[in-house]
Amino acid sequence: MPADGCVFCAIACGRAEASVVFEDERVIAFMDLRPVTPGHVLVIPKAHAEGLEDLREDVGARVWTVAHRLGRALRSSGLRCEGVNLFLADGEAAFQEVFHVHLHVFPRFQGDPFRIEADWRVCERRLLDGAAAAVRSGLAALDAPAR
Amino acid sequence: MPADGCVFCAIACGRAEASVVFEDERVIAFMDLRPVTPGHVLVIPKAHAEGLEDLREDVGARVWTVAHRLGRALRSSGLRCEGVNLFLADGEAAFQEVFHVHLHVFPRFQGDPFRIEADWRVCERRLLDGAAAAVRSGLAALDAPAR
Ligand SMILES: [Zn+2]
Ligand SMILES: [Zn+2]
Repeated sequence: MPADGCVFCAIACGRAEASVVFEDERVIAFMDLRPVTPGHVLVIPKAHAEGLEDLREDVGARVWTVAHRLGRALRSSGLRCEGVNLFLADGEAAFQEVFHVHLHVFPRFQGDPFRIEADWRVCERRLLDGAAAAVRSGLAALDAPAR
Repeated sequence: MPADGCVFCAIACGRAEASVVFEDERVIAFMDLRPVTPGHVLVIPKAHAEGLEDLREDVGARVWTVAHRLGRALRSSGLRCEGVNLFLADGEAAFQEVFHVHLHVFPRFQGDPFRIEADWRVCERRLLDGAAAAVRSGLAALDAPAR
């Protein structure tokens, strides 16, 4: 089950050092080695999955539920926490660096160093409707029987 | 159930315009009016919840599962998609702007305008262990019986 050379599989198996905050049969949560803010946690499935495509739906839901609880826990942890971000990167173009799926949970506070840059302009309804149709076709393709 | 003046409640009730891609009894997914990239979707619970604290755990898991499927769907949507990000902002300090909880799902590609800035330095194990202990105490507080 562990993927060769995968550092998160090594953590899940207890073969690599980590500061673990939670663990059950399916998932494990531990501190990110390069925290954006103090309290930055990663939640991963124990079974290797590279990304959203090969992550089992029920295991993904469990990863989320643990992250949801961790997000709430951060607010009563004593660490500085005025807000919380959850972030997942699926694929290199989305800034994924370790190819074992992981959900980031990190506390935020006024003046912290985390920043996002994007172009937030309002989009025309015609273009949004076109994108919606494309996404619906993608959903339909997921549900189509494999050929 | 709908919160007064909440634009996402209005969308969930069908009282405000949106380009909807998916809907079931508990959640609805629609195109973000200010897309980071074409295909940027928001998944929300239909019942108003401001953030992680008042979001029911099972409803949150459903929001996640729909986002998981949408992330996969984007890759076969025909829209430009070389990767996918999932992002949730809980609280103003975490960049939340609409106070009805929502999970962003958006496609990524080389050269797109989305950027993250942070300080990614490796943290000492001693500090990580201290943060882990704080997070575990926060988790324990969640499980403690209400007084
Ligand atoms: Zn792995
Ligand atoms: Zn609302």
